[in-house]
Amino acid sequence: MDRSAEFRRWKAQCLSKADLSRKGSVDEDVVELVQLLNGREQFFTTSSCAGRIILLDRGINGSEVQKQNCCWLLVTHKPCVKDDVIVALKKANGDAILKFEPLVLHVQCRQLQDAQILHSVAIDSGFRNSGITVGKRGKTMLAVRSTHGLEVPLTHKGKLMVTEEYINFLIKIANQKMEENKKRIERFYNCLQHALEKETISMTSYPKEKIKEKNNSSYTHKKKRNPEKACGKYITEENNKELENDDHDDPGISVTIFPEDY
Amino acid sequence: MDRSAEFRRWKAQCLSKADLSRKGSVDEDVVELVQLLNGREQFFTTSSCAGRIILLDRGINGSEVQKQNCCWLLVTHKPCVKDDVIVALKKANGDAILKFEPLVLHVQCRQLQDAQILHSVAIDSGFRNSGITVGKRGKTMLAVRSTHGLEVPLTHKGKLMVTEEYINFLIKIANQKMEENKKRIERFYNCLQHALEKETISMTSYPKEKIKEKNNSSYTHKKKRNPEKACGKYITEENNKELENDDHDDPGISVTIFPEDY
Repeated sequence: MDRSAEFRRWKAQCLSKADLSRKGSVDEDVVELVQLLNGREQFFTTSSCAGRIILLDRGINGSEVQKQNCCWLLVTHKPCVKDDVIVALKKANGDAILKFEPLVLHVQCRQLQDAQILHSVAIDSGFRNSGITVGKRGKTMLAVRSTHGLEVPLTHKGKLMVTEEYINFLIKIANQKMEENKKRIERFYNCLQHALEKETISMTSYPKEKIKEKNNSSYTHKKKRNPEKACGKYITEENNKELENDDHDDPGISVTIFPEDY
Repeated sequence: MDRSAEFRRWKAQCLSKADLSRKGSVDEDVVELVQLLNGREQFFTTSSCAGRIILLDRGINGSEVQKQNCCWLLVTHKPCVKDDVIVALKKANGDAILKFEPLVLHVQCRQLQDAQILHSVAIDSGFRNSGITVGKRGKTMLAVRSTHGLEVPLTHKGKLMVTEEYINFLIKIANQKMEENKKRIERFYNCLQHALEKETISMTSYPKEKIKEKNNSSYTHKKKRNPEKACGKYITEENNKELENDDHDDPGISVTIFPEDY
C-alpha cells in the first residue's frame, strides 16, 4: 500500500473510534479547528485539549510529582470563579496545585511537508513550543504547544499556604491566560485557513512547480517570522507584543546566532 | 555543495562565533552534554540553558506578558535560598513572578534521521515536550524541552501577596525541580552516549544494511517506550514514576488511540 493510501486508512480508522477522553468529546473552543484539520486530506487530529484551569491534589505519601496519588479537585475549560476554587481546596489533604494548561493538540500529517506548513502556522499563531515527531516508520505528527502556563502550589499536607486575596488574584491571572489562549486558538484557525487557501491556489495555478518544490522538501515562508504580516488582520499590536515574550531564547541563554535562511 | 559539506561548514562557523548570551558561557550542568553533541559530526548545539530559577518583575504599565517592561530581579542556575529571594523581592515595583525553567537545548542535526535518534533519547530521558523543526531549506533542529515547570505570581503592583513561610515552601519545591532537572540531564547524557555507541557498532558491523535502513528513513527503537529499559542502569524506580506524570495526555484530553508501531 502506498503512503497516501495507508494514511487515508489510518485516518478513517482513527476518526471512527470512540473518543476515549474522560470528557468523551472535543472541547468547544477547538471544535472548529479540529473540524478544519480533519476536513483536509493531509491531516487528522489524534488528541486535543483546548486549555484548562485545573486544581490537583498530590498525595502526602507519594512523591511530589507522582501521578498515582494525584486527584483532580477541579477542572474547567471556562474562566473560573474564586468560590469554586475555595470549595475545591477544602477537599485537599495533600499538596494541591493550581495550573493553567494552554492548548495541546496532536495532529498526524500525511507527509513531512504537511507538518512543516502546520508547524509554521502554529509558531506564527503564538504556539512557540510546537514540534514535529517522526516515528520509525515515518509516522509524522505535529504537537501544538504554547509556553503560556501557570503552576502554583497552594496547600501543603492539606494546609492552605496562601490567603483568599491571593487566590482571587491568581484566578484573575489564570482567567487572563485562558482568554489569551482562546485568542491564539482563533488566530491559529484563521492563519491555517489562510495557509491552506494559499496552498490550494498554488497547487491549481502552478501544479508542476509545486510538485517540484515538494520533492525538494522545501516549504517557502517568510525569511523573518512576523505574525502580524503572516495573517495580519487577525493580530493586534498587543497580541504581537505578547508573542515576543514567550521565549526562553532570551539573552540569558547561551546562544550562537546563525542566519535564518539556511 | 552537498548537504554534509554544507552542514560541516555551518557547524564550524557557528561554533567559532562568540557566545552571545548574557552569561557568555555554557551553563556548568550542560557543558558535558554540549561537548558530547558538538564532538559528533552529525550535531551541533545552537543554544542552551541548563535550567534556572528566575524572579521577574513585570512593569505595572505594561501588559501582563510584555517583555519590554520586564526586569530580572534574580537568576540562578543553582538551588536558591529564601533570603536571596526576599531581598530581590524588595526591589519589585510591578508584578513579580517566580519561575523554574527546566533545560532548553537547541541542536542542529545533519539530517532528519539524526534528529529522530536524538528526539527519541530526549523523550526517553524525560524531556517530553521536545520536538523537531524542519526549515524551508531542510535545516533540521531538535528543541529539547521538559514539561517540568513552575510559575508563581508573588507581588502585585509591588505589594507582596504571600507570606515568607509560603516563599520558603515554594523555594523548596523549585529546588526539588532543579534537582530532578539535573538528574534528567545526566540521564540524557548517558542515554545519548549509549545510543551513539549502538549506532557506531551498527555502522561498523553492518554498514550496508545500515545505509539501506537510513535511506528508508527508519530508525529502529523499541515499540513501547520504557525509559528504564532504554538506559536501565541510570534510571531509578522513583525517576520512572516521575516521568509518567509529565503528561498532558491524560484522560482529560480528547484522544483517539492508535497503534504505536505505525
